[in-house]
Amino acid sequence: MSENTTDTILDAIRFDANGLVPAIAQQHDTLEVLMMAWMNRESIAETLATGRVCYYSRSRGKLWRKGESSGQQQKLHELRLDCDGDTLLLLVDQVGVACHTGRRDCFYRAVRDEKLVEIAQPLISPEALYGHGHSHG
Amino acid sequence: MSENTTDTILDAIRFDANGLVPAIAQQHDTLEVLMMAWMNRESIAETLATGRVCYYSRSRGKLWRKGESSGQQQKLHELRLDCDGDTLLLLVDQVGVACHTGRRDCFYRAVRDEKLVEIAQPLISPEALYGHGHSHG
Repeated sequence: MSENTTDTILDAIRFDANGLVPAIAQQHDTLEVLMMAWMNRESIAETLATGRVCYYSRSRGKLWRKGESSGQQQKLHELRLDCDGDTLLLLVDQVGVACHTGRRDCFYRAVRDEKLVEIAQPLISPEALYGHGHSHG
Repeated sequence: MSENTTDTILDAIRFDANGLVPAIAQQHDTLEVLMMAWMNRESIAETLATGRVCYYSRSRGKLWRKGESSGQQQKLHELRLDCDGDTLLLLVDQVGVACHTGRRDCFYRAVRDEKLVEIAQPLISPEALYGHGHSHG
């Protein structure tokens, strides 16, 4: 993607006071909502340039190339922008699992019968994803 | 829902410094991502109590009962919480359209062929939704 095109897209986004915008990742074919994370200008430019989703980790204060340590990458199919320009929807192809707990998506707790219950199990153990001493990625 | 249950759910949510949490609304059957908005404790409690989605409007600084002025309500099917407890996924039944522009969902701008293009048209005119002098709702 040309720098001009990337600038046009970035200019249409309303970043918050911290220079961030929330990004929802949705599996492009099954339409599962996988996760929500944050992006800054640099991570969006990298995502558009490489076709692999790169977020900005607020806890680590740096770019977070999804799957870099775990192998569970997200290939970008399409980037969408909402009416107010302050939220992104990323249609992706998720390799393996999106959640650092080893579950396919992060939204595995639901209110059912007046209780907060787990509705999905890990498909991969966190240890298999990261080895020891890591989290997320 | 009992007050105890609501408190248990609210206690599992990590609100930001402003007491807010982002909430993604997804149509429960078609799995379309409709919009993203923000909720506070009070709006979540009201949503769980009434079964109709109530957000918190950051621009207006008050509860935003979705559809109150436009008629385009969201009935709650299920509330889900992500692994970190800092994002909600609302499975809803959207009456009519979610977007204040009259489109079904808010994510109608996409990057295609290196351009930011509109990929959906309004189904209802904003004037029909709000009359004159209103926005959102």
